[in-house]
Amino acid sequence: MTTPKLDQALAGEIEALAGEGRAKPPERVITGYLPPAGTRGPRYTILGQDREFIRLNSNSYLSLSQHPALIAAADAATHACGVGPGAVRFIDGTFSYHRDLEERVARFTGKPAAKIFNSAYTSNCGLALAIGSAKTHWIGDQLNHNSIIRAMRIAGVPSGHKGIYRHNDMDDLRRCLDEVEDTIERVVVIFDGIFSMRGDYAPIDRIEAVCSEYRDRFQDGVITVVDDSHGIGAYGATGRGTSEYSGATPDIIVGTFGKAFGVNGGFIAASEMVVEAVRQKADTYIYTNPLSVADCAAACAAIDICDSDEGLQLLAALRERTGRFREGLTRLGLESIPGPHPVVPLMVRDTARTRAMVQGLFDKGVMVVGLTFPVVPKGDESIRIQINAAHTEADIDYVLEILARLQ
Amino acid sequence: MTTPKLDQALAGEIEALAGEGRAKPPERVITGYLPPAGTRGPRYTILGQDREFIRLNSNSYLSLSQHPALIAAADAATHACGVGPGAVRFIDGTFSYHRDLEERVARFTGKPAAKIFNSAYTSNCGLALAIGSAKTHWIGDQLNHNSIIRAMRIAGVPSGHKGIYRHNDMDDLRRCLDEVEDTIERVVVIFDGIFSMRGDYAPIDRIEAVCSEYRDRFQDGVITVVDDSHGIGAYGATGRGTSEYSGATPDIIVGTFGKAFGVNGGFIAASEMVVEAVRQKADTYIYTNPLSVADCAAACAAIDICDSDEGLQLLAALRERTGRFREGLTRLGLESIPGPHPVVPLMVRDTARTRAMVQGLFDKGVMVVGLTFPVVPKGDESIRIQINAAHTEADIDYVLEILARLQ
Repeated sequence: MTTPKLDQALAGEIEALAGEGRAKPPERVITGYLPPAGTRGPRYTILGQDREFIRLNSNSYLSLSQHPALIAAADAATHACGVGPGAVRFIDGTFSYHRDLEERVARFTGKPAAKIFNSAYTSNCGLALAIGSAKTHWIGDQLNHNSIIRAMRIAGVPSGHKGIYRHNDMDDLRRCLDEVEDTIERVVVIFDGIFSMRGDYAPIDRIEAVCSEYRDRFQDGVITVVDDSHGIGAYGATGRGTSEYSGATPDIIVGTFGKAFGVNGGFIAASEMVVEAVRQKADTYIYTNPLSVADCAAACAAIDICDSDEGLQLLAALRERTGRFREGLTRLGLESIPGPHPVVPLMVRDTARTRAMVQGLFDKGVMVVGLTFPVVPKGDESIRIQINAAHTEADIDYVLEILARLQ
Repeated sequence: MTTPKLDQALAGEIEALAGEGRAKPPERVITGYLPPAGTRGPRYTILGQDREFIRLNSNSYLSLSQHPALIAAADAATHACGVGPGAVRFIDGTFSYHRDLEERVARFTGKPAAKIFNSAYTSNCGLALAIGSAKTHWIGDQLNHNSIIRAMRIAGVPSGHKGIYRHNDMDDLRRCLDEVEDTIERVVVIFDGIFSMRGDYAPIDRIEAVCSEYRDRFQDGVITVVDDSHGIGAYGATGRGTSEYSGATPDIIVGTFGKAFGVNGGFIAASEMVVEAVRQKADTYIYTNPLSVADCAAACAAIDICDSDEGLQLLAALRERTGRFREGLTRLGLESIPGPHPVVPLMVRDTARTRAMVQGLFDKGVMVVGLTFPVVPKGDESIRIQINAAHTEADIDYVLEILARLQ
C-alpha cells in the first residue's frame, strides 16, 4: 500500500517546521574512525567529505568508546552468549551480564540497588511509571531533557499534577512546592544534573535543602531525582557526577552508559524498594528486550576504568583540556557560561553569525553543534562544544586558532 | 538520601499487585550458553540450578543470536568504530552502519524507506509522535502489545480519539471506523501481526479491505500499521512476516531485530515522507543514542541470512519443528490454538494446573512461560511455548515426553 494523502499532509507539517527554523537538516554519515596518532587526537571521516574531522560534539567525554578493554569485554560477551538476549527480562532474558552491571552501577553510585534500561530516555519513562501514582505531583526544571517531558506523558500525569520552575531558581522551586494541592501524597522533584545545552549544573545541595522543608507535608515525602546523563562518569573529583560536584546526593539517580562511559543504555539507581517497583511497574523495562550482553560487559568495563587510577587520569586530562579551551576562549574575548563541565557553550548571540561560525569550523574539519532561534531564545544563539579526554592539546589549540580567524 | 516513606508506600503497592496475582516473581539469571551438540540443541545454565535447560521461551525464532556471521559482524564493527555512537543521530551520531541497516530493512520489507530505533517499543512510541496530530484518530486490536498502548499515552492521544476492536473482529473494526468523528482528518489502524501470547495472526488482507471502504472519508486517509515483531523474519514463505503470510501489506510496518533476527533494536518501514516525519518528529528517535554499530552490523548480517538459501532452510527447520511439536500435542490430546507460528500456546484452562505443569517442565530442564489469571481471563490459562530453528527433533520429542508424563 502507499500513503499519498498522508505523505502530502506530512510534507506540509515538515514544511511548517522548516519555516519556523525547527526542521533538522539531513544527517551527516560518519564512515570511519582514525585512532589518535602523535600529537593529534582521534579523527573521523564523513561521507562526501575529503578531509578528516575533530569531533567536538561527542558525549563520549572520557573517550572510552574505542578503549581496548571495552572492545575486548564486548567481544568476549558476544562470543559467550550471543548478540541478542532473545527475551524480555522477566521471561528469562536476564543474563549474568545484566545482573553484574546492575550491581556495578549500584556500587558506583553508592545506592542500594539499580536497574538498567536500553537508554536514559526509557529510564525516565520507566521511573515515571514505577513511582508515579494518582496522587503524585511532579516538579521539574524548565530546561529538563525531552525524555522527562515525555515521561510525564507516558505515565499520564495530569497537567494539574505538574509544576515547572525557572531554570535553577530555588525561589521558584519553592513556589512550585507551595502550589501542590493538599490531596497529593507524593511529590517528585526531577532535574537534569548537567543542562546539556549550557554545561551548567543543578545546585543539588540547595535543591535538597529546599525539598527538606517540605518533606513532612506529604505522606510519602518529597523525592528528588537527578537525570545525570551528562554528569555521570564525567563530573566531580572521581566521576560520580553532579552529586559529587555539588556535594549532595538525590534520592534517585538516573544516568546513561552512552555518554562518559562510551557505550549505550541507561539506569536508575535508588533504594531496593524503588528498584523493585521499577521491575514490577516500569513498562519500558518490562516489555522490551534488555541491552545486549556486549553492551553490559562494555559498560561494566567502562565503570571499572572510571573507578581506577586510569579513570582519575582521564578525568584530569578532561579537566585540563576543558580548562585550556575555556582559557583560550577568554583570551580571544569570546563569551561562555562559566563552569568546569566539558560542555562549553560559545555564546554568539546571533543566528546568522552562529551559522557562519559552525560552517567555518566544519570547513576546517571541526564538528560542533549550533543552537539558533527558535531552539534557543533570540539573543541566546550559541555553539555547543564538547571536550573529550582524548582531544590533545594540539587539537584544542587548532580549534582556538580557527575560532580566532572566524571572529 | 533515603526514601523510607516512599519505600513503604511502594511496598504496599507491590503487595497489592501480589495479592491480585500480578506481581512478577524474581528474575532467573542465565549464566551460560552451551552450543548444540549431536542430536541435542542449544542449552542454557541458570544461576542456582545444577542442570541444563532447553529454552522454549525465546523469541530468537531463527536461532541467529549465536550465528558466527552475526558475531563476526558485531566484532568487526566494534573494532572499526567503537562500542557506542557517542551522540544522537542528528548530532553526528549517524554511522554508515545505521544508514546501511535502514537501507537493508527497506529492501527486505519492500518499503521505500526505514528508520531504526533502540527497540520496537520506542519505534511504536516514535511512530505515534511522528504521524499523530490533533485531528488523528487511532484504532487498535484489543490484544495489542503494551508498547502501542503506551505510544498513545506518550503522544497524548485523547480518549475520544481512540477506538479498540475485539480481537481480530472485522465487524467490530468497522464499528470503530463508523464511530470516528467527522472532524477527524487522519485515521490510523494499528495491530500486532502475531499476537504474542496466542501465536495467532492479524488477517491483514481483511483489515485492508475494511479500511479501504473508509479511505475516502478522511482527508489524510486511513493508514494501516502492523507491529510485526513476532512475524518479521519468522513467518511467511520467505520470512517477510505476517504481510507475506496473509497476502496483504499494510502502509507501515513496525518490527524488531530482537526476535527472529536474534539481535536488538526496532524499525519503522514506510514511505519516504513518513520516514522523514519520523526523523523530524519522533522524540524517541531524535533525543536518544542510536543502536551500537555492532547491533546494526549484526542485524544486517541476520537479514542477509534470512534473505538467503540458508534462511529458507532455517525457516523450513522452524516450520518442521513447530509442526512436529503441534502434532505431538494433538497426539497427547492437548489443546492449542491452531496455526503455523512458532508461538504455540498450550491451553491448560486452569491456574493451579498451569503452574504445576510449568514447574514440572522446569524440574526437567525446560523453560516455558505460564499465563495465569488475571494476566489472561479465567479459563484461558495457558503455557506459551516458542519453537526455535535450532531445537532438534530430539529436543521436541523430549519436551513432548515430559508433557505426556505431566498430564
